[in-house]
Amino acid sequence: MSGMDFQTILDEINTELRPLLGTGGKVASYIPALARVSPLQFGIALRTCAGQTAQAGDSATPFSIQSMSKMFSLTLAIRALGEAMWDRIGREPSGSPFNSLVQLESERGIPRNPFINAGAIAVADRLVSQGDAKVELLALLGRLCGEPIHIDAEVARSEADTGFRNTALANFMKGFGTLDNDVATVLDVYFNQCAIAMSCEQVACAAGYLCRDGRHPLAGTPVLSAAQARRVNALMLTCGTYDAAGEFAFRIGLPCKSGVGGGIVAVVPDRLSLCVWSPGLDGTGNSWLGRQALELFVAKTGLSVF
Amino acid sequence: MSGMDFQTILDEINTELRPLLGTGGKVASYIPALARVSPLQFGIALRTCAGQTAQAGDSATPFSIQSMSKMFSLTLAIRALGEAMWDRIGREPSGSPFNSLVQLESERGIPRNPFINAGAIAVADRLVSQGDAKVELLALLGRLCGEPIHIDAEVARSEADTGFRNTALANFMKGFGTLDNDVATVLDVYFNQCAIAMSCEQVACAAGYLCRDGRHPLAGTPVLSAAQARRVNALMLTCGTYDAAGEFAFRIGLPCKSGVGGGIVAVVPDRLSLCVWSPGLDGTGNSWLGRQALELFVAKTGLSVF
Amino acid sequence: MSGMDFQTILDEINTELRPLLGTGGKVASYIPALARVSPLQFGIALRTCAGQTAQAGDSATPFSIQSMSKMFSLTLAIRALGEAMWDRIGREPSGSPFNSLVQLESERGIPRNPFINAGAIAVADRLVSQGDAKVELLALLGRLCGEPIHIDAEVARSEADTGFRNTALANFMKGFGTLDNDVATVLDVYFNQCAIAMSCEQVACAAGYLCRDGRHPLAGTPVLSAAQARRVNALMLTCGTYDAAGEFAFRIGLPCKSGVGGGIVAVVPDRLSLCVWSPGLDGTGNSWLGRQALELFVAKTGLSVF
Amino acid sequence: MSGMDFQTILDEINTELRPLLGTGGKVASYIPALARVSPLQFGIALRTCAGQTAQAGDSATPFSIQSMSKMFSLTLAIRALGEAMWDRIGREPSGSPFNSLVQLESERGIPRNPFINAGAIAVADRLVSQGDAKVELLALLGRLCGEPIHIDAEVARSEADTGFRNTALANFMKGFGTLDNDVATVLDVYFNQCAIAMSCEQVACAAGYLCRDGRHPLAGTPVLSAAQARRVNALMLTCGTYDAAGEFAFRIGLPCKSGVGGGIVAVVPDRLSLCVWSPGLDGTGNSWLGRQALELFVAKTGLSVF
Repeated sequence: MSGMDFQTILDEINTELRPLLGTGGKVASYIPALARVSPLQFGIALRTCAGQTAQAGDSATPFSIQSMSKMFSLTLAIRALGEAMWDRIGREPSGSPFNSLVQLESERGIPRNPFINAGAIAVADRLVSQGDAKVELLALLGRLCGEPIHIDAEVARSEADTGFRNTALANFMKGFGTLDNDVATVLDVYFNQCAIAMSCEQVACAAGYLCRDGRHPLAGTPVLSAAQARRVNALMLTCGTYDAAGEFAFRIGLPCKSGVGGGIVAVVPDRLSLCVWSPGLDGTGNSWLGRQALELFVAKTGLSVF
Repeated sequence: MSGMDFQTILDEINTELRPLLGTGGKVASYIPALARVSPLQFGIALRTCAGQTAQAGDSATPFSIQSMSKMFSLTLAIRALGEAMWDRIGREPSGSPFNSLVQLESERGIPRNPFINAGAIAVADRLVSQGDAKVELLALLGRLCGEPIHIDAEVARSEADTGFRNTALANFMKGFGTLDNDVATVLDVYFNQCAIAMSCEQVACAAGYLCRDGRHPLAGTPVLSAAQARRVNALMLTCGTYDAAGEFAFRIGLPCKSGVGGGIVAVVPDRLSLCVWSPGLDGTGNSWLGRQALELFVAKTGLSVF
Repeated sequence: MSGMDFQTILDEINTELRPLLGTGGKVASYIPALARVSPLQFGIALRTCAGQTAQAGDSATPFSIQSMSKMFSLTLAIRALGEAMWDRIGREPSGSPFNSLVQLESERGIPRNPFINAGAIAVADRLVSQGDAKVELLALLGRLCGEPIHIDAEVARSEADTGFRNTALANFMKGFGTLDNDVATVLDVYFNQCAIAMSCEQVACAAGYLCRDGRHPLAGTPVLSAAQARRVNALMLTCGTYDAAGEFAFRIGLPCKSGVGGGIVAVVPDRLSLCVWSPGLDGTGNSWLGRQALELFVAKTGLSVF
Repeated sequence: MSGMDFQTILDEINTELRPLLGTGGKVASYIPALARVSPLQFGIALRTCAGQTAQAGDSATPFSIQSMSKMFSLTLAIRALGEAMWDRIGREPSGSPFNSLVQLESERGIPRNPFINAGAIAVADRLVSQGDAKVELLALLGRLCGEPIHIDAEVARSEADTGFRNTALANFMKGFGTLDNDVATVLDVYFNQCAIAMSCEQVACAAGYLCRDGRHPLAGTPVLSAAQARRVNALMLTCGTYDAAGEFAFRIGLPCKSGVGGGIVAVVPDRLSLCVWSPGLDGTGNSWLGRQALELFVAKTGLSVF
């Protein structure tokens, strides 16, 4: 492992997959700011526990992290609340699309897990109770990357303008009494966290605490406890890629969290954290080429938790 | 790791948990042969990749493996059919109880995964198309354990007499055209596989190919390919413990498959396979004390895939 | 009303609609005996409370009454059990396809109403507890028509051979404990009642007790009480035409019960009972031309309960 | 019929039921303005097609008509749009609670019927496209009653403050593209129509067009066409009393529309329109004593559409 030449592996993946750009996948089109992102981009970056980095393609280009932000907001909430975080949020795969209201109804406003939209809105609600959630989240990401991180204001505004389904989810939970704060305030946090822009290199670095038993990727200080970090990894594996989590576990076998901006972050416990990005999505809302890149990475390295 | 004294660890777990026998959990009561099993039993056994064994408590007592058999029937079907096994069986967590018909209806007779009842019945159907499924399954288990394995005829008869829900599932799939063989023949295989009796020691040995990249636990010959074995582990982690799979991943972090007989088999890839058994079940249908034993094992050893 | 010339009205309907035969609707094809019925048939017949009859087209041709039998089996069960009939069968529209299992699951084996398949199977179960249900049903129909009524044995056999969904429904209820008798015995009654063959003239006569406050159409003796007859009419209006009951009430405004053989029986309380038949079905499983005939009948006569 | 002494009948019903006040039913408590209404009230009033009136108990006390307003807003929309009203609103019973989101999701934002909340919000959306919906609705009601009708501003404000579920429904439909107007504007109409206050006598008069083939109760001019009026009656019978519509049809047999303020309006086609009110609700959200009053009325008069 220590001897693996990750730079060569990422270069190979970039060389093999780049010709496929434009031949599959569809860029998310529900907001203009995402719809006009060029699909002809592919980036990949990783950072090992030892601090070694590797990258290829458009790895330095910032993109909208979207649902990948749920992993970081969950981390903030666990830091603030510990086990109490889980009082009104479940930990089971949903078996339903990420923005479905059906399950939320039968389970009376308790989201199945923190990675479906309802769950992430519930996490945002807990963060609002703790302070200025947007500021805290950007601060956490800045510390994890070692450089400032920003929200794309246009994306945030578009999310708010078109977020009817998420507004429905939040009001639905408020009706069940499972949100503590004002719906508009909670949604403002949620829409803004989805609009955070980061590059593959930044995400790969920021996620480093998840392959290090919770320790800060640069400073080594605890971000989460070892048990908490393991549990975030477990949630990513079972619930991190919408209704394709089983398929990701089956074919890739790593904890992953994806976003409709086309990014996917993956964790190899005790080894490395990795981020791949390509804007075209497959039918499950996961990056079409990103998924292939992860399959190739696993095939070339033999890394998998199983 | 090589230095871990597993015998001492299992003895400690037995000592710590045995006093809890009778204070929680409820023995499955849907058939008399299961209902009269004494709840005051607890056994645990493991076998490492190096062939080291450890056991404690009632580890040599045979019990009804029930749904744990789904892991072995799936293995048989993958051996026989390869990727074609997956043509009409999904790989996603169900988000619903193990014997639910709802999802089967909305997904037109395609079971979500091979570990819910509908999926296991579909696997049994494929095995029936290949030959004498009951004989093949007992032969596989016998080879994996190095000793003959039997079906408890009384349990099998009871399963058939009371298996209305499973009969409904099978007829429902037949109506959708997703079962190839006669319903009665398929159910006979399914009811018999659930009635197989094995001890913790036997199960821990038999599951050994799953921690060995698919190689036979005793002979070292391939049972599955390395990729196939990893994928069975992935399915166990995401779907192996009914509607508590997320919770198992979160708290235990190992591929597990449970049965309503009170057994749970767990795999630590590249390290060991383990089986724990205690008949009292929790509200999710998983062994109440077995689950605690696995949490203790993980806490004491630090083993987890995450 | 007494002055209405029903024979002329039915002749007009026949003349207007017959040219449409073959231009729409699809004959039920799930069993060969139904699939080979010629779609080019249309019959209509009625019988007033005063005993006046009118008929047009293929009104004397026997056809498979299918789900229209549910109205008569319900009548038998109400006669035998009174209010107790309703202990484990609901009276609400289902909002789901007639053979759906979903609602049955969420409502724990209690069918929503006696006209969905699960409900009719539950009614058959109650009849089995009372005696020889097939004999009783044929005897009731024979008395109501004044001539012997038969089961089409080939249709009955085909129903049994292909009735996987109904077998699933029955086993599902048996699993919930809401069927008292053996699944096979209950299904035998159900498959046979669906295979009863009657002509429009026979059905129009037999249904006469429903427009006469429950009194026998020929003898005037009570078949049901006035309140019971009104309630059967109410159930027909809210639940009698599968998932199109709202649309039938909206456009036709009469209690109706349809069958996939292409028949529809309608009741005008205190006036007449009517049966129309044409084998081609629309997308909701109701007779395509029969529905148009009822709309025309209502438009020409102004008859409607609303 | 013309000889029926309706005043005596209503007096009898009042005398028989008034002693039951306070022994059953629960006043709606989701907003303070409704929660503090005294449950010890019961009123009933009717008006025949010939203009005869009868009333008993608290028949002149205004109450919050709530969902009974859906009947009047539907009438306004049919007047404005004719058949086009039905382009994105169904006519089938829902088989689900009145404020369920599940069905709305599976049917992609098309409400099942105009009397569930989603359907009434969709009707309000159409009215907003036509002009000042609140003004129009009050004007219609004023003309139908022959006296001015008002909105209870405190109730309207409370509805808006606590209407999370309805806000969820509206946003959900907006997300599916089935609402044309701004969510806040549409909900303002909806919350205000629910807050209209009327007495039994006023409602009984206002609903008079429904028993008169659509003609104005006082002026005799057309409010709806005869066919449109019949269809509104049909919808009331199949969908007017939430998930108890089947039971109302079965036991009462009249088109009814209820509200959580405790009112129920009923129509006897060609005879009379009637309103009963008592604030205590049963488990289905319908007036507990109002329902009994209607059963008594039907038993005493023999009136029923069946």
